[in-house]
Amino acid sequence: MASTCSVLLSLLSITLFSFLISPASSLHEHPLDPLTPEEFSLIRHAVMRSYGASSENVTFHYVGLDEPDKPLIYSWTLNQTDKIPPPRRASVVLRFHEQTHELIVDLSSHRPSIVSKEVYHGNGFPMLTLEEQTAASDLARTHHQFIRSIEKRGLNMSDVVCACYTVGWYGEPRSRRAMKVLAYYTNGTVNFYMRPIEGIVMVVDLELMKIVKYHDRFATIVPMGEDTEYRLEKQNPPFGPHLKGAAIVQPDGPGFEIKGHTISWANWKFHIGFDARVGPIISLASIYDLERGKYRQVLYRAYVSEVFVPYMDPTEEWYYKTYFDCGEFGFGLSAVSLQRGVDCPNNAIFMDGFYAGQDGTPVKISNVTCVFEKYAGNIMWRHTEIGISDETIREVRSDVSLVVRSVSTVGNYDYILDWEFKPSGSIKFEVGLTGLLEVKAVNYTQASQIKEDEYGTMVGANTIATHHDHFLTYHLDLDVDGAPNSFVKTNLITKPVAEEGVPRKSYWTVSSKTARTESEAQLHLGLEPCDLVVVNPNKRTKVGNNVGYRLIPGPIASPIQFRDDYPQIRAAFTDNNLWVTPYNKSEKWAGGRYVDQSRGDDTLAVWTKRNRKIENEDIVLWYTLGFHHVPYQEDFPIMPTLSAGFELRPSNFFDRNPVLKTKSPKPVILSCKP
Amino acid sequence: MASTCSVLLSLLSITLFSFLISPASSLHEHPLDPLTPEEFSLIRHAVMRSYGASSENVTFHYVGLDEPDKPLIYSWTLNQTDKIPPPRRASVVLRFHEQTHELIVDLSSHRPSIVSKEVYHGNGFPMLTLEEQTAASDLARTHHQFIRSIEKRGLNMSDVVCACYTVGWYGEPRSRRAMKVLAYYTNGTVNFYMRPIEGIVMVVDLELMKIVKYHDRFATIVPMGEDTEYRLEKQNPPFGPHLKGAAIVQPDGPGFEIKGHTISWANWKFHIGFDARVGPIISLASIYDLERGKYRQVLYRAYVSEVFVPYMDPTEEWYYKTYFDCGEFGFGLSAVSLQRGVDCPNNAIFMDGFYAGQDGTPVKISNVTCVFEKYAGNIMWRHTEIGISDETIREVRSDVSLVVRSVSTVGNYDYILDWEFKPSGSIKFEVGLTGLLEVKAVNYTQASQIKEDEYGTMVGANTIATHHDHFLTYHLDLDVDGAPNSFVKTNLITKPVAEEGVPRKSYWTVSSKTARTESEAQLHLGLEPCDLVVVNPNKRTKVGNNVGYRLIPGPIASPIQFRDDYPQIRAAFTDNNLWVTPYNKSEKWAGGRYVDQSRGDDTLAVWTKRNRKIENEDIVLWYTLGFHHVPYQEDFPIMPTLSAGFELRPSNFFDRNPVLKTKSPKPVILSCKP
Repeated sequence: MASTCSVLLSLLSITLFSFLISPASSLHEHPLDPLTPEEFSLIRHAVMRSYGASSENVTFHYVGLDEPDKPLIYSWTLNQTDKIPPPRRASVVLRFHEQTHELIVDLSSHRPSIVSKEVYHGNGFPMLTLEEQTAASDLARTHHQFIRSIEKRGLNMSDVVCACYTVGWYGEPRSRRAMKVLAYYTNGTVNFYMRPIEGIVMVVDLELMKIVKYHDRFATIVPMGEDTEYRLEKQNPPFGPHLKGAAIVQPDGPGFEIKGHTISWANWKFHIGFDARVGPIISLASIYDLERGKYRQVLYRAYVSEVFVPYMDPTEEWYYKTYFDCGEFGFGLSAVSLQRGVDCPNNAIFMDGFYAGQDGTPVKISNVTCVFEKYAGNIMWRHTEIGISDETIREVRSDVSLVVRSVSTVGNYDYILDWEFKPSGSIKFEVGLTGLLEVKAVNYTQASQIKEDEYGTMVGANTIATHHDHFLTYHLDLDVDGAPNSFVKTNLITKPVAEEGVPRKSYWTVSSKTARTESEAQLHLGLEPCDLVVVNPNKRTKVGNNVGYRLIPGPIASPIQFRDDYPQIRAAFTDNNLWVTPYNKSEKWAGGRYVDQSRGDDTLAVWTKRNRKIENEDIVLWYTLGFHHVPYQEDFPIMPTLSAGFELRPSNFFDRNPVLKTKSPKPVILSCKP
Repeated sequence: MASTCSVLLSLLSITLFSFLISPASSLHEHPLDPLTPEEFSLIRHAVMRSYGASSENVTFHYVGLDEPDKPLIYSWTLNQTDKIPPPRRASVVLRFHEQTHELIVDLSSHRPSIVSKEVYHGNGFPMLTLEEQTAASDLARTHHQFIRSIEKRGLNMSDVVCACYTVGWYGEPRSRRAMKVLAYYTNGTVNFYMRPIEGIVMVVDLELMKIVKYHDRFATIVPMGEDTEYRLEKQNPPFGPHLKGAAIVQPDGPGFEIKGHTISWANWKFHIGFDARVGPIISLASIYDLERGKYRQVLYRAYVSEVFVPYMDPTEEWYYKTYFDCGEFGFGLSAVSLQRGVDCPNNAIFMDGFYAGQDGTPVKISNVTCVFEKYAGNIMWRHTEIGISDETIREVRSDVSLVVRSVSTVGNYDYILDWEFKPSGSIKFEVGLTGLLEVKAVNYTQASQIKEDEYGTMVGANTIATHHDHFLTYHLDLDVDGAPNSFVKTNLITKPVAEEGVPRKSYWTVSSKTARTESEAQLHLGLEPCDLVVVNPNKRTKVGNNVGYRLIPGPIASPIQFRDDYPQIRAAFTDNNLWVTPYNKSEKWAGGRYVDQSRGDDTLAVWTKRNRKIENEDIVLWYTLGFHHVPYQEDFPIMPTLSAGFELRPSNFFDRNPVLKTKSPKPVILSCKP
């Protein structure tokens, strides 16, 4: 160790990594690239022109890429040298005079044009804008009944914060766009979710933007909120536990390259999009096959299609809390800026995201996605062989993976979404749940005082954290070595031993069944041991197995509300853990196109009733990762991350272990040079 | 960045870290420390003295710490200043003139003495020694029938390797110690497991050490073994995928301290033992409670108690392959040396392990355990708050965990065992499966040629990888805030809504039931949603919840052989995913004390039939982590790690999030100085 060189590593990383990202250009590098700020502006102008003098009454609820048809994308990827991109279009959802308008805007020409415009007359409403949620939350402060309620409770209005909640649908024949507003208290903490002002519910008509219903049913103590502050600078000693700092050093730079939105790393190549509704979208993931000397397609498109979060308190103030975080709030709209060194490790590279604000202008979320190589100290494969005399054989490969991360904070909860690519061909999907619980204020200070069901756990004095679920339904459009695929369920079957002279009585073997239609693929997992494989029935390995990828489920949790209960009708796409549908570009979102106050008539569970053919077709898997969350005191006042996930793993996709001939990275020699 | 400083990081780490480990001393630092080489020698001498002239007929099958009774350990930990250690004893299992002898050797005095000696007359035999396995494997080479079989197949004896297999028990009334020996072919690869010489089974009587039964039933092609070589220096280009190197740099050194076998890190403190039968043992894990200002007990002792690996080929050459990797082969005896940079990251610290060879002398496994801080880029907790106007709130803590790793290679398979401690109070138990499959040679070269069940997947020409399971039964002696604990199953129950005026129909709530006796705690998981909590019914949080830790299961797999089949009778401890027993020092190993050729009369499933009281008692959880393994071509010729695990997570153990007041580690400033 010689001489002095002192470098702030995070700065070093930025310097090292930034040259690898091509600057955003006005040229579309890839037909699946998300809309650019310039495009959002062009779309807005085109829409405003179209609505003319009335355009001030237009609110933008969704603007996203209307992605080209799959065959066009594939033919483009094959003939990229031609660089004739497929038509570039945007899908726009507006509200205008209490109506939902659906527009398609063509961006191919210099002057964008509206190529279709329809009024939607069905059930449900579009995603809520952040602006109207803020406006709705702000109404209470000047509402005379609310002022009286706050005074009556002896609270200061200046410390009151309001938050708004989707109302769901409970059988009412007519719906108007509305939200419910609840009140919280800050006074001494920014963790207002831990200080609910219980008993008051306000209903805001979003079209009128006024409080149309007010009910102050009862009052309880507002929990004191002591030690709920999570900001370091507001906390008092003692601090701890103490952790030592570390940094990942990559003297040869990172192993991946980002061109526009396309990432190449190790044997993987894929595209990262970003959408206001679902957040990050992984597209066109393909893996290089060393033996065949070419990239082979695995995943056409994957994203979190819907997130259903029903709370389990049936009282007037709580019963309606059954959120659809993508369709109502937008997992992209709720995505947050990530910070180097804490949200993502020091060796991460960041990408920005954009969405259209309520007025149509582009809004930037800087550092909305990060990409990093994960050096978790895992072993890719190993073996120590002692069976050969006079030879000591120990062969080990250390593992590295590539993670794409985003975080969506929907009100109180933070969802960490990780997509992890492994050189062995696996893709791991993980979600981490953190953030703040939804709690209810009660007058009790001790668990022993509770004699009736309070629908949650006492996590602090006067504080009940409510039981709830999280169901994340992933849209997994696998194209295993091409689009025509089949879904095969391989059951493990116990058999009696028939071999003569063998004293063993039983063993298990496999019995594979290909699902011919949608109904045959619907699965409630956990009931029987099985492997779930997507195969390409037209492609075989050298020894003749159908090439495939299998889904290895995570912990299984299924909804246990009544099937005919309103929230579950709307969330019927969670009735099975797994569904398979034929690819249909319009079937993007498991909860349907318009989820706010939806009635369940446009969900995956409905589409699939047609029982379409799915054998040797272009198919899509819909897998639901579920959590039943019984809160515990450790989740209070901010929740340590609880993680779960699932894996897509090559299964006879390769002729052999695809990392058999990988070398472990060289031992790192750290040299600091001027 | 200035001047030159070039350091090989792995060397740097050794320099940095080594001063932290106190040198092994002859003083016992901790009563749970594994036996030292000196102690193994003393034990051997004591035994040899005792057997006198006949001592040459003694073979040592197990020598391990006979750990002091739990109350003695606890009182020692409370009064460590006195430093009067509890009695130090060893448990020894010998074979002598075809009998199993059980000895207890007292090591407290200067001259160790045998305090008890018994002859075991029950079923089953002790662990096999490595030496006798080598001897049995070597017999074939000079066996005339085998020589003829090899000649008949046109193979060269110099390229033949033999391996031996436990024979199990299949109802025969009398058992002699025996193994079966199978043959493989190296010629061109060290991966001989991929080149079985099919059709020949030899039975070796281990007492006579000779082949007592020989059957050459049929011959098949020996798979060619092309591209099965996993040693880098024997492979040919192309290599790939290519991965960039990285290193973890900790300028302030590691965050943990090792004194003897006791580790302190962040808020955790625990002891790491090592045993020939089960490998690493975690003891006395306690966590510092910042609010209460003291360490609190979580886990008295945890280890992998047994590993059951039944193969599913019922033919004569395969049916008996139903291994018990701990009781037959020893997970400690099978543990291997780990290599910095590949088995464990560059920032790991290593510990050695020792066991008694067949002649009683100590054998060292260097670097048998590694301990490292894992910087996987995870988020400990976070929240972005947009609900408070004019304030931007984003608070994130990055996560670090501490991993204790060992690898046991039982013949073909490598098990990576990770014990991960998190500052949030969680302990994650993960097992990674890698190494080599057991394959069968067939004459087929294409999957389409197979018309009958071959009991596996064709992974290469002439090569079938056989279906099998892995069941790892963990012994988890939780002492949550003290020894008297109860096991509580919290069921999630769907209820109809009874609230007036509320249109929702259903919700779920919890219904907790404390298991009073062993039978009430036996669980087949996956049938109904529930939380599994070990509580201390005598200790409460401030708001009055019983303090607890819950077990969050991993993917669930249960045996699906017939319950009355011989292997399953012996492995009846896997019949449930979870059992709870009262602590009993003698109930260490789920498969019983003598597992080789055991008959199932001494397993957890038998002990628990007494249906003892387990409410507010010192209890032990036995959790089985299972894998059904349908092989795929990617697992050939060496298997990319397949991982799964489970978690113990504090559940009302703390009054609030125990990492609320943790600071993220400081950003690392890298300075290289002379």
